[in-house]
Amino acid sequence: MKQGIAIGLDIGGTNCAFGLVDEQGRIIARDNLPTASCAQAEELVKALSTKIKALAKEAGSPAIQGIGVGAPNGNYYSGCIEFAPNLHWEGIIPIAEYFKKHLSCEASLTNDANAAAYGEMLFGAAKGMKDFLFITLGTGLGSGIVANGEMIYGHDGMAGEIGHTILFPDGRPCGCGRKGCLETYCSASGLVRTYREKAGSAFRAEMDAEYIFEKAKAGDALALESFSFTGEWLGFALANSVAYTSPEAIFLFGGLARAEEYIFAPTRQSFEKNLMKIYKHKIKILPSGLKPGDAAILGAASLIWKKSMQN
Amino acid sequence: MKQGIAIGLDIGGTNCAFGLVDEQGRIIARDNLPTASCAQAEELVKALSTKIKALAKEAGSPAIQGIGVGAPNGNYYSGCIEFAPNLHWEGIIPIAEYFKKHLSCEASLTNDANAAAYGEMLFGAAKGMKDFLFITLGTGLGSGIVANGEMIYGHDGMAGEIGHTILFPDGRPCGCGRKGCLETYCSASGLVRTYREKAGSAFRAEMDAEYIFEKAKAGDALALESFSFTGEWLGFALANSVAYTSPEAIFLFGGLARAEEYIFAPTRQSFEKNLMKIYKHKIKILPSGLKPGDAAILGAASLIWKKSMQN
Repeated sequence: MKQGIAIGLDIGGTNCAFGLVDEQGRIIARDNLPTASCAQAEELVKALSTKIKALAKEAGSPAIQGIGVGAPNGNYYSGCIEFAPNLHWEGIIPIAEYFKKHLSCEASLTNDANAAAYGEMLFGAAKGMKDFLFITLGTGLGSGIVANGEMIYGHDGMAGEIGHTILFPDGRPCGCGRKGCLETYCSASGLVRTYREKAGSAFRAEMDAEYIFEKAKAGDALALESFSFTGEWLGFALANSVAYTSPEAIFLFGGLARAEEYIFAPTRQSFEKNLMKIYKHKIKILPSGLKPGDAAILGAASLIWKKSMQN
Repeated sequence: MKQGIAIGLDIGGTNCAFGLVDEQGRIIARDNLPTASCAQAEELVKALSTKIKALAKEAGSPAIQGIGVGAPNGNYYSGCIEFAPNLHWEGIIPIAEYFKKHLSCEASLTNDANAAAYGEMLFGAAKGMKDFLFITLGTGLGSGIVANGEMIYGHDGMAGEIGHTILFPDGRPCGCGRKGCLETYCSASGLVRTYREKAGSAFRAEMDAEYIFEKAKAGDALALESFSFTGEWLGFALANSVAYTSPEAIFLFGGLARAEEYIFAPTRQSFEKNLMKIYKHKIKILPSGLKPGDAAILGAASLIWKKSMQN
């Protein structure tokens, strides 16, 4: 058991949220900085490092074990953010290297879904599990795959893109340039696309996932059908996923997962229906055990605490 | 480095093939026994143990490090064959336990595709790779998934059933009781089903995968179309698989893989076409580096040598 704290930092398109996290997964202090506050990535890392040092000083200067960073298109092996479409930097950005330089501590980086999966394993509902899937249902569908107690990064650091398996050949256009990807159907924005298809000319721009959730709660047929459709195909896709890694549980996290039974019920029903016999009735689909506001920071900090536990 | 040999045993529906394998992956002696020669599984294990001891004696009584067994529906965690449809024993058979008793050595069991994947990693074309897929294209489509240098067994020992991901909902009936599984399209028998659909009333029972291969080599349009169709959907499915574990390479093994470019060319073409951009042009689809007659024995023996290397 080591003393001190790990820094958890989540770099998002709009905001960078960070916190000091102890080994029990408590966030003892937190702060944030707008991602656009610096034009250059290294400048942002410098500014973040200054704020992190100040936050640590306020908290009584605990020993910093390292900084874990979750970011879109974060590559664990290289420590770089690679061609992230939602960030304003281009190309390959060596974030971990910048933090080693400006914060003078160990720095580790991975993509945001992998980081949250780590958080679930160390501090959430996946504690003690060696094989599970972690699915984030937001604008897209992100995933972290844990097998044999380890995150699967793949040979190039880019594994775990279940949202970009093709569900329907020649299906809905996807931001990745292909068609029919799972995330174009099963995500908050996929739900909206489904609702839009059903609503036709009655659809208006303000009808977002939150709106559809409210309508579903009020018993609106189109909204309920949209949730059913989304859950039906999510359950189907997750049943296929099971044939890869046979996880003990699948955790659903993110905006769409907060619709609770409106998404969990149809997903579970379709999942069991589509599972191969050897897998039936033994794999749980569960909500994440992390608080939405804490998950990204805890997950990022887990990159450091995970390493510390292995040493 | 340990001295001695490992026993590799492949239990098939018809035949049990076994051999003495040294740490360099050389089969120094081999023999076999028909699977149906004993009615009870424990009797068969006894008979096999007697033959194995005799074979080892003939070979100069090298130290036996253990026996590795590859078998359909073999569960690595339990050491049992579980409900194998193509074997004449029912229920759960504790094969590893029987061998520990009758051969008085370490015994390890896994399913045949996982065993062959281990063989590829230790002695074949996957040497030194930490992330790869191994696909057997025979009567069905079997798979072994290696990530972070470890076989993925899943929480229950039943991971790696890519052949039973559903390619087409409501597609061809599968032996697993569901419809549209990948192996009903992409396997030797899937090729035959495709050819049968195309040939219609001209189809005859003797038109097996071998026949279709010969016809394809002779330039027959239906046979060539059947290979194209099979490769097209195999490439599509493998492109989806990459999004899970981002392997360095995918190895194709088994009867259908021996059709070489008739299956590799359309598979690779469709694979690249369907890959997400971040994966394009960096993942190889390769033939297995193991001889067809050796793979099952080498793979099974690898279960023992793998453990020995880790100790």
